Formats: sequence, C-alpha cells, structure tokens
Amino acid sequence: MILTEWIGYFAAILTTVSFVPQVWQICKTRHTQDISLRMYILFTTGVGMWLVYGFLLASWPIIAANTVTLVLAGAVLFLKLRHG
Amino acid sequence: MILTEWIGYFAAILTTVSFVPQVWQICKTRHTQDISLRMYILFTTGVGMWLVYGFLLASWPIIAANTVTLVLAGAVLFLKLRHG
Repeated sequence: MILTEWIGYFAAILTTVSFVPQVWQICKTRHTQDISLRMYILFTTGVGMWLVYGFLLASWPIIAANTVTLVLAGAVLFLKLRHG
Repeated sequence: MILTEWIGYFAAILTTVSFVPQVWQICKTRHTQDISLRMYILFTTGVGMWLVYGFLLASWPIIAANTVTLVLAGAVLFLKLRHG
C-alpha cells in the first residue's frame, strides 16, 4: 500500500510540475500561436472543478495538487490570451 | 454526496477532453513549435503513473480517465516529436 501511495504522489507531482516548462518557454519566446486556446479554457475550468471537488471532500492532496496546477495552467491561459 | 460525485465526474471529463482541441489544431496546422516538449514528456509520464496507480487500486474511474488522457496527451507528444 505504501508503494501505491508513492506512485500516486509521484504521478501528481509529474502532472502538476509538467506545466512549468510550458510557462517558461512562453516567457522566453512570447509565442503561443500553436497552443490551443480551447484546450486551456477547458483544462483550467476542469482543474477549477477538481479544486471544488477537493474542498467538498476536504481532501488536502486534491486541493494542493489542483491549486498548483490551476496557477500554472491559468498562467498559460493568461499568456495565450495576451500573446495570441 | 451525489452533487460532489457529479462535480468530480464533470472535472474528470473536462480535464480529459481538453486535449482534443490541441490534437485537432496540430492536425490542421502541423505547427507545434510553441508547445513545450518537456511539458508533454513530463505530463504523459505522469498520466502513465496515474494509470498504474489506478490499476493498483483497481479504481475504474482513474483507469478510464487516464487511459483517454494518455492517448490524447500521447498524440500531442507524438505530433510534437514529428513536427518539431
């Protein structure tokens, strides 16, 4: 069971921090044309819903992971709207 | 509790299908330069770990959602590697 939990935490960390290189790349290049606006509208809305779900269940791992993801995916959405 | 479950399912559907417009946009334009390769390497690895986690817990919602996400994010990764 402990191994299973570690795999879950590792999965959560990977899918959360994965957005950091995308934010970094946009900050460097200011190019967002190939990134789908619709994807990030759907994705950030979905992550926002995961956050609500986490609060309703009072599940701190869900709240923590999705707060970080919301900030990062929200940054990609903001930069996409800014740079087009 | 039923509302909470619906919010969870809605969140899972949104974060899963969000990759469809990105795959569609790449298929149309064949442009992937602004998409971060590192992001999709980390993200697909993370989703793969979520799938392992789902199998270890025998959780069909986790397995189903992450199988679809793995196919879609894997398609973005494949197209990124192909088009550069």
